[in-house]
Amino acid sequence: MSPADPQVPLSPVIDYLNRLHETCATATEGEVATYIPDLAKANPDWFGICLVTATGSVYAVGDTDVPFTIQSISKPFVYGLALEDRGRSAVLEKVGTEPTGDAFNSISLEPGTGRPRNPMINAGAIATAGLVEGRTHETQLRRLLETFGLYAGRALSIDEEVYQSESETGHRNRAIGHMLRNFDILSNDPMPVTELYFQQCSISVTCRDLAVMAATLANRGVNPLTGKQALRGEYVESVLSVMETCGMYDYAGEWLYNVGMPAKSGVSGGVIAVLPGQLGIGVFSPRLDARGNSVRGIKVCETLSRNLDLHLLNRPTIGRFTIRLKFTAADVNSKRVRTEEESQMLRKTGSRICVWQLQGNLTFSTTEIVVRDLIENFADVDFFIIDFQQVLSLNESACHLFHGFLEKLTGHDKRMMFTHTGSVPLLRRFLRIKMGAGSDAEYLAFDVNDLALEWCENKLLDLHLPDRKRDHRADPATCDAFAGLSGEELAIVTPLLQHRSYKAGESVIIAGDEADEIFLLVRGNTSVLVPLASGALKRLATFSPGMSFGEMAVIDRAPRSALIRADTDVECALLTLADFDRLGREHPRIKIQLLQNLCITMSGKLRKANWELGVLTE
Amino acid sequence: MSPADPQVPLSPVIDYLNRLHETCATATEGEVATYIPDLAKANPDWFGICLVTATGSVYAVGDTDVPFTIQSISKPFVYGLALEDRGRSAVLEKVGTEPTGDAFNSISLEPGTGRPRNPMINAGAIATAGLVEGRTHETQLRRLLETFGLYAGRALSIDEEVYQSESETGHRNRAIGHMLRNFDILSNDPMPVTELYFQQCSISVTCRDLAVMAATLANRGVNPLTGKQALRGEYVESVLSVMETCGMYDYAGEWLYNVGMPAKSGVSGGVIAVLPGQLGIGVFSPRLDARGNSVRGIKVCETLSRNLDLHLLNRPTIGRFTIRLKFTAADVNSKRVRTEEESQMLRKTGSRICVWQLQGNLTFSTTEIVVRDLIENFADVDFFIIDFQQVLSLNESACHLFHGFLEKLTGHDKRMMFTHTGSVPLLRRFLRIKMGAGSDAEYLAFDVNDLALEWCENKLLDLHLPDRKRDHRADPATCDAFAGLSGEELAIVTPLLQHRSYKAGESVIIAGDEADEIFLLVRGNTSVLVPLASGALKRLATFSPGMSFGEMAVIDRAPRSALIRADTDVECALLTLADFDRLGREHPRIKIQLLQNLCITMSGKLRKANWELGVLTE
Repeated sequence: MSPADPQVPLSPVIDYLNRLHETCATATEGEVATYIPDLAKANPDWFGICLVTATGSVYAVGDTDVPFTIQSISKPFVYGLALEDRGRSAVLEKVGTEPTGDAFNSISLEPGTGRPRNPMINAGAIATAGLVEGRTHETQLRRLLETFGLYAGRALSIDEEVYQSESETGHRNRAIGHMLRNFDILSNDPMPVTELYFQQCSISVTCRDLAVMAATLANRGVNPLTGKQALRGEYVESVLSVMETCGMYDYAGEWLYNVGMPAKSGVSGGVIAVLPGQLGIGVFSPRLDARGNSVRGIKVCETLSRNLDLHLLNRPTIGRFTIRLKFTAADVNSKRVRTEEESQMLRKTGSRICVWQLQGNLTFSTTEIVVRDLIENFADVDFFIIDFQQVLSLNESACHLFHGFLEKLTGHDKRMMFTHTGSVPLLRRFLRIKMGAGSDAEYLAFDVNDLALEWCENKLLDLHLPDRKRDHRADPATCDAFAGLSGEELAIVTPLLQHRSYKAGESVIIAGDEADEIFLLVRGNTSVLVPLASGALKRLATFSPGMSFGEMAVIDRAPRSALIRADTDVECALLTLADFDRLGREHPRIKIQLLQNLCITMSGKLRKANWELGVLTE
Repeated sequence: MSPADPQVPLSPVIDYLNRLHETCATATEGEVATYIPDLAKANPDWFGICLVTATGSVYAVGDTDVPFTIQSISKPFVYGLALEDRGRSAVLEKVGTEPTGDAFNSISLEPGTGRPRNPMINAGAIATAGLVEGRTHETQLRRLLETFGLYAGRALSIDEEVYQSESETGHRNRAIGHMLRNFDILSNDPMPVTELYFQQCSISVTCRDLAVMAATLANRGVNPLTGKQALRGEYVESVLSVMETCGMYDYAGEWLYNVGMPAKSGVSGGVIAVLPGQLGIGVFSPRLDARGNSVRGIKVCETLSRNLDLHLLNRPTIGRFTIRLKFTAADVNSKRVRTEEESQMLRKTGSRICVWQLQGNLTFSTTEIVVRDLIENFADVDFFIIDFQQVLSLNESACHLFHGFLEKLTGHDKRMMFTHTGSVPLLRRFLRIKMGAGSDAEYLAFDVNDLALEWCENKLLDLHLPDRKRDHRADPATCDAFAGLSGEELAIVTPLLQHRSYKAGESVIIAGDEADEIFLLVRGNTSVLVPLASGALKRLATFSPGMSFGEMAVIDRAPRSALIRADTDVECALLTLADFDRLGREHPRIKIQLLQNLCITMSGKLRKANWELGVLTE
């Protein structure tokens, strides 16, 4: 099956839902709603269960494609729309947030203000419908349908027959409309608003639609199948709050206690439940209990919550795994190849450079774990490298914590560095605002850890090995490759060397070329580069004067395996394959020494690679 | 500072709380409670804020060590105790879970049953106190104090003066006690129960205690500072549910809407709030509003929720990072060193072996992400290796999903393997119960990925290279180390070889020894082992007949760097350092060839190590 298909047919989740469907189908108590004639036509045996995760998996069993009208389940979605259109405080002026303990069609206006107690009772829902943006009833309706379509991930329409039936029998709701007008909760003619309310209740949906809509609320307002935003993230908590306290009518306490998910039911037999950040559930079964909730709908939600441990208030502790990996430059280094002296110094002092590789969602609680760890390492670390590559999201309170830590560095000879900040644009914006455009003085941003590590290593080496050679001109006779050769032997080898120069950026070796030269780097830097899937080049090594490269292909007679490029203007001394072979015949002692030197260099690199592998994968 | 110190003084969190304290301290409205004389003695300016995370960080500012009586904040904790002592259904028979909208001291008994509506009103709290286990009032009180001590992480005691004062003025609560007796909610003399209730309200705590107690609820009942369980995890959701709907009296809807955390306040000026899985908050400020809630307490909770984005219903989506890393045996292999032919075959077919390294808390939603990925790879993978090393917790619904996937493998020539199952004992127990003791037929458990990988690689190689040599006796003349030598040259070298045997388990090379021999493995297997911090040995490589080891130390004249042990009975052929040196003098062509062979072997290993490093750390 294709990963793009959101339905996962082979899944044990489907097996489980099939068993659940079978069990709950035995419940045949309850009656189909009859208060408007069209609802009474529903087949009482219809029964669908659909679960959609916030990451976009869809699990549907039973009658999940039968259309029915959404009824009261429309209320939270229209409430979200009103919040977007008017803002939270304007909406709260017109509709409260307290549960009533009364039935769904109670009028329940707050003494004094005349505010409906909450947006889930009819009075509150009509008041909410009146807040939908639009100069005319038609533009309001269009906006409402468009928004519902974003939630469902497909265009939805009104069941005109049910709407007419609702409208013809909706006297009580019209009375509510006039009452709301009386208290100035509705400021214009209440009749078009009441019609809009009848229409929103008559939107035709399926059980699958309901689950996708619920999953959109679970996914902070973004439809997990289409990736489109149906509601701004900041309002999701408000919609879910009124669902949680008022969504199941006079049943809120028991529902939260037993099921523990914000939910909403409708008289046509639908129920939705939302576990924020995780999943949405849609159930459809038209038989209702005395409270007007779907009998099987409630049974399914209760069983799902119990079996799958979905109670909102039963959460495992956020663990320390926000820090995916942590290592220091005593163990893992940049790709710049170091001299033995430098390597020894880095093993000794590299723990002053520490990399925190973070992952997941950075909120207050997960970032607190990180910042606490930074602080606990304050005395022992001078270079704090924070890697955001695996971070999925970051909120403002996380920004505050990172900025707060950055401020702690003032007056200390310590630096903070951020890598892969492309995934956290909010952080860069936040720091720019807090610290001004010149905030590079406070922190440094690098694309990749490799470059950040090299920068820090150089600082550390400058401090501890102030006299180390840098950017010097190496005498080929003192190259590592010629170590152990006598003066006499050197006098034989060095005249064989050819000299060649490259401009910065020029290719020294191209992958696939025939290998017929060993390179000794006399001046400048060269890097081994391999292309990534993204097209970018990743460096495998950078060489400094006195080091050699390109030997292996000469020994195993294989084509060149990677690109080597001049980072700066470069001078090289070259030993050709022909001369190397001739040395073997005429001066075997020299060739033996060269090969032994190469073995020692490679053995050091192998040991280092295996060490890093161990540290990074433990 | 020491990591063991839970207080994090340098933290930006403290800076933030100090600013919050300063801002909220300007609120001087409200009155100290006077309904019992002792409460009126409180300094109205006392003000403490403490935040404790579920992972055990403590952030305290202001008057967090001033003792005061816990009052109504005791109610949820005693409710948890009743749940543990009597079970959920017995408790629900005596006390309901619906909010009342009435004041804290309302009697609010359910018509018919006489059940108090919920355990947060006094009537419900007295009924709850009556459910605490204990034959005598004293044993009940002791049990209650012990439990509170577990929550707070220190021994707590009763403020006798306040208790006397409560008892002397508690006529209304005595009336409630008798009314509860009348409805058989209390089954014995109500007066000792009422006294127990007065005593629980008179337990002396500090603001810091409250925050630790709240954090214990956030951490599924385990005190994050002491690691001790104060409440069984399964009951935490019930305690938090009644806090959420009934904890702030007639303010539940607005509180959830604005603050979004289960909370409880008390007339002495304390407030606690809990964000499950994340943190607990304690605030102390004695000035109360008209509803009996601490004015600053509410202000602090509202501001914290807004600034730190703590609303329970505002959760980022659980991401795909449950899968920490995923790789196949085409890229990353076991530590068994393979022949060139075997390596090539693994590069070609190794993608049939896939490792999923999981992390974090495995719940339904996070495990669904994993199982979905397993299913999406069903056709392409034959060996599914699931690594639990980084998993923090796993619940039963996760077990169901893994077991469900395991069942899908029946009838397919596919295998599932689990590694590092030590961190998930529940899974092993679950599978043993589901599939019987012989469930190894269905899945295999390995300690580490290395061994699971090797097992799978062997199966794959058996299939694709049925004629490959295994457990054979190698002729030293055909060893990789002697590749490229002529018959004449071999006739010179092989007589130099010494032969030596080792029993299975015997050490062949010991770290630190002087290096004076190169080993050619003729029969059996040897492994390179290094000790881990835990004392266990980790293998770096396993060699088969025809391979050589121990060469490097001979070339760089360094002591042996690792232990090499015989895995089976082993025969080796050895070339001594003296002979090796002599070859250089007398038959340099041979030594050159041996060194070149070594370079080629090492270069292959280096390339492989760097490749794995790239794959595992991308």
